[in-house]
Amino acid sequence: MKTIGACFSADTHQCTFTVWAPEKKKMALHLLAPVEQQLDMPKGEMGYFSLTLDDIPPGTRYYFAPDEAEKYPDPASHYQPEGVHGPSEVVDHAVYAWQDKDWRGLPFKDLIMYELHIGTFTEEGTCEAIIPYLDDLVATGINALELMPVAQFPGSRNWGYDGVYPYAVQNSYGGPEGLKKLVDACHARGIAVFLDVVYNHLGPEGNYFGQYGPYFTEKYATPWGTAINFDGDWSDGVRDYFALNVIHWFETYHLDGLRLDAVHTIYDTGAVSFWEFLHHKIRSLQQRVGRTFYLIAESDLNSPRVVKSPEVGGMGFEAQWLDDFHHSLYVLLDPAGRERYADFGHLEQLAKAYTDGFVHSGEYVKFRKRKHGASSVGIPGDQFVVFNQNHDQIGNRVGGERLCMLVDFERQKLAAAAILLSPYVPMLFMGEEYGDQSPFFYFVSHSEPALIEAVREGRKKEFESYQWDTEPPSPDDEDTFRRSRIDWQKRGHGKHQKLLRWHQTLISLRRTEPALQNVCKNEVRVHILGQRGFVLHRISENEEEHLLCLFNLSDEGIPYTFPSWTGTWKKILDSKEPEWVESPPQDGQAYA
Amino acid sequence: MKTIGACFSADTHQCTFTVWAPEKKKMALHLLAPVEQQLDMPKGEMGYFSLTLDDIPPGTRYYFAPDEAEKYPDPASHYQPEGVHGPSEVVDHAVYAWQDKDWRGLPFKDLIMYELHIGTFTEEGTCEAIIPYLDDLVATGINALELMPVAQFPGSRNWGYDGVYPYAVQNSYGGPEGLKKLVDACHARGIAVFLDVVYNHLGPEGNYFGQYGPYFTEKYATPWGTAINFDGDWSDGVRDYFALNVIHWFETYHLDGLRLDAVHTIYDTGAVSFWEFLHHKIRSLQQRVGRTFYLIAESDLNSPRVVKSPEVGGMGFEAQWLDDFHHSLYVLLDPAGRERYADFGHLEQLAKAYTDGFVHSGEYVKFRKRKHGASSVGIPGDQFVVFNQNHDQIGNRVGGERLCMLVDFERQKLAAAAILLSPYVPMLFMGEEYGDQSPFFYFVSHSEPALIEAVREGRKKEFESYQWDTEPPSPDDEDTFRRSRIDWQKRGHGKHQKLLRWHQTLISLRRTEPALQNVCKNEVRVHILGQRGFVLHRISENEEEHLLCLFNLSDEGIPYTFPSWTGTWKKILDSKEPEWVESPPQDGQAYA
Repeated sequence: MKTIGACFSADTHQCTFTVWAPEKKKMALHLLAPVEQQLDMPKGEMGYFSLTLDDIPPGTRYYFAPDEAEKYPDPASHYQPEGVHGPSEVVDHAVYAWQDKDWRGLPFKDLIMYELHIGTFTEEGTCEAIIPYLDDLVATGINALELMPVAQFPGSRNWGYDGVYPYAVQNSYGGPEGLKKLVDACHARGIAVFLDVVYNHLGPEGNYFGQYGPYFTEKYATPWGTAINFDGDWSDGVRDYFALNVIHWFETYHLDGLRLDAVHTIYDTGAVSFWEFLHHKIRSLQQRVGRTFYLIAESDLNSPRVVKSPEVGGMGFEAQWLDDFHHSLYVLLDPAGRERYADFGHLEQLAKAYTDGFVHSGEYVKFRKRKHGASSVGIPGDQFVVFNQNHDQIGNRVGGERLCMLVDFERQKLAAAAILLSPYVPMLFMGEEYGDQSPFFYFVSHSEPALIEAVREGRKKEFESYQWDTEPPSPDDEDTFRRSRIDWQKRGHGKHQKLLRWHQTLISLRRTEPALQNVCKNEVRVHILGQRGFVLHRISENEEEHLLCLFNLSDEGIPYTFPSWTGTWKKILDSKEPEWVESPPQDGQAYA
Repeated sequence: MKTIGACFSADTHQCTFTVWAPEKKKMALHLLAPVEQQLDMPKGEMGYFSLTLDDIPPGTRYYFAPDEAEKYPDPASHYQPEGVHGPSEVVDHAVYAWQDKDWRGLPFKDLIMYELHIGTFTEEGTCEAIIPYLDDLVATGINALELMPVAQFPGSRNWGYDGVYPYAVQNSYGGPEGLKKLVDACHARGIAVFLDVVYNHLGPEGNYFGQYGPYFTEKYATPWGTAINFDGDWSDGVRDYFALNVIHWFETYHLDGLRLDAVHTIYDTGAVSFWEFLHHKIRSLQQRVGRTFYLIAESDLNSPRVVKSPEVGGMGFEAQWLDDFHHSLYVLLDPAGRERYADFGHLEQLAKAYTDGFVHSGEYVKFRKRKHGASSVGIPGDQFVVFNQNHDQIGNRVGGERLCMLVDFERQKLAAAAILLSPYVPMLFMGEEYGDQSPFFYFVSHSEPALIEAVREGRKKEFESYQWDTEPPSPDDEDTFRRSRIDWQKRGHGKHQKLLRWHQTLISLRRTEPALQNVCKNEVRVHILGQRGFVLHRISENEEEHLLCLFNLSDEGIPYTFPSWTGTWKKILDSKEPEWVESPPQDGQAYA
């Protein structure tokens, strides 16, 4: 397999620099130390320039100079210590002493995922700073982190989707070593680590890809401009670049899985799709290292194809996010939600989300002005990830409000139960488990003024269509970032503590009740009770255990008669019992 | 199912006018006779405006006026008697008395296809004028016409790919009635009729689609500009428009199949692809009328997916053109061919074309600057159409030369045998069977001067890259069109007559030899003989009959020892025997 970037060997103390630039005639390696010098790189097969040097100490900083003109950082840089515009740095990955030899990963169906933004999870905003909190997460029952993107982005504040060095770990997050320490600490505690990666576009600032090769194509357009070139002239180098990136995260950082951003904007009509190509590489790696790696898709397609295997025309993902579940439930909990999700609001849709998966499976969708989706009946529950909120749903509101700022305590508990008792893999957004009340705003720290202005205007424009009457806080204001930081202390107090225990209890139920462990949707039933209630009926794989989960979305009681075809029903959890009710004074401080 | 356009009922004498314009508020029907008047059309579901009127005689001419402003022809017009800019005409399809009640189509594997350009096949250039020639075609063994596009295009001279009324039959070809007469006459003689249709773009002149609705999308680009909107906002109307078009040709014109132009530029990433959607409609029609309809793809993908069923991620075509076969063989016959097909020229490639199908099945292709294709091993031979020349290969040469102007008589015979003895469905280009020597140029008769100039420049530019030293004749010059007309008289004379009989004999062999009827490629063998010869070994389905086809691409003899594992070999045809050799005087007139 190809290697790109600076590949340092601890054994030989050699470093091989490789860069793909198929249309360039020449390439120079520009070393900044020990003496600044520029070395000619011979051009090999398929457009790769490569040069192996002795005695390059790890930490050496370098650039490449395509056609020996201007110099730019390495597009496959593993580390950008001075940010997106600065030199790349040679990393010796062997120096880190991994402690996770015995780690074999976790079954996907057993995961309780936790989406985490490194910059706002702690005061420090680094990977390492997360480690002291891991035991708390374990105690809650969380066993999988999903880190928002860490690929080097401009400045120090960003959601991560403006990354321009897909192989690098953000310097302000602590660089390569920080991420390794975090992953290692997670594995030591039985937590799997997923990383969000972006293969559908590259950020606008510090993006020097065009200086190297045809990474982009005019053939397709994405919301972020021209698409990445997965099937046009010279696309082999681009396919290698991104497929190797997947392998890089698994091999170098011991990650358990990746979440791929917006796969519907990755276009490839070639005879061998990028997905098939990638799938093959991952399978080889899995068999070589003896453990399973997962790919999760964010997809806007409502297509079962996403999780089908490439042999039957699929994209081969282990699972995909199920946005329709969120929309169906949220709009029932918060009537204002209709403004944003106009095609939702019927209890039958939530029932369909439980039993089928996609709610829009071919029907006309007003928002899209067309019929949308195909049926996902028959796809097992553990091929979907569900959530009550993620970075997008919170951050793309003017006020950045989390669910707990939009619906009352009773409905927060209901929402938690809705995902944790579902046949799907649940995902929480950091702080959700105790109802953290900080907003999660959209923030950037670009350095180019025109770009900052464009981002500001873009955000305003995005909100115009929703007719929200306030203006979003300025994305580039540091305070917007700071206000988005969660407050871990809250979890020990009052209703926050109750909500945390509620999550804990539900997760524990999910782990112990056989009926909740059956991910076959064929054994999931939903009975609608009038206008505002429903029963989620879960059945164990051996069909002997039945669990009825009664949900009341209204403020009034709903009469319900238990079915008589079984012996007796035993109540195991009731959110109306005193220990779960938010009692006055509702302020957490009363319990401090 | 939806109906669009002007739908006249002979029973009720009513005519229903329907047009799709989802973003328009109003629509008027503008009738030109008996009295010129404009009538408001009510807007119904999904963006369709519709109005039913009594006493509209067939032949009535009309326009639509979107938002009651300018008036334009009907995008689903069945007839444009005055050309692309004129009014549309109401057609009573029931008036034609079909004689083909007993026609049940032909098995695809039995077809000998014949690509025909209506405008240049006869002096008259109409559908009807073709009928007197059909018996000659039958005598040659041809049993399937593939008509180049008939959808109304600007002016009277065009290959057909500039069509702008996909439901109409070109007025200068004789309109709807002319095509019906031709199809009926073909069916009466056992000839199936295929039509070339273009669903990847619409022509530049007389294209009023933008006045009606979002037929195009900016999301994808094609060589002809923005792509047709098969998956974006409002795409349901566009999908219906083109799917109904397929049904229109089958139902209204009794066609046997369609050849879809450049399917690789039809983009659709939706959960239910246009192909799946279309497939379902065709299946219903087939079961309703009790006969099979075929779709053939022109595809640049080298993808087995094209002929796989939608259930396994395929596009569901019956067959696809196998350009690689042409390229492999042609470059071996004409060394100058390497200029255009630089990635071909090895005998092993032709062998692979016979045994596997795609020659480029994943290897790096210089012309494309990337790896191309996937293996088509295992796909039956009757899912591929092969040819030694088609309109593109001839017409996209500066001199418009057919194969017979590029290679000698011996090689013309070899080429004919190569396709007719193959496991694939062969297709001839009109006149090929007797070595017609007329060029086939690119020609247009647009009326807009700027467009004509653009076409002229475009053609010149296309040829620049091949460094041909002559200029192409002006596409808009009527003489360019006239010179492209074939000369049917030639077929009765000299070498032309010999070549015609050679084709006849090969076709007859193909029909009678069991070894040639087996389309399973698993039983096709090719043995390469040195640098310039090969044996095509065909085996019957019951594995009892063997046929060895010896091909010598050189001018010298090649020694060959027949395999001894069978009894005796019987020679059944030899192109070196006197009756097949072009003898001096080589001029056909000597035999007149």
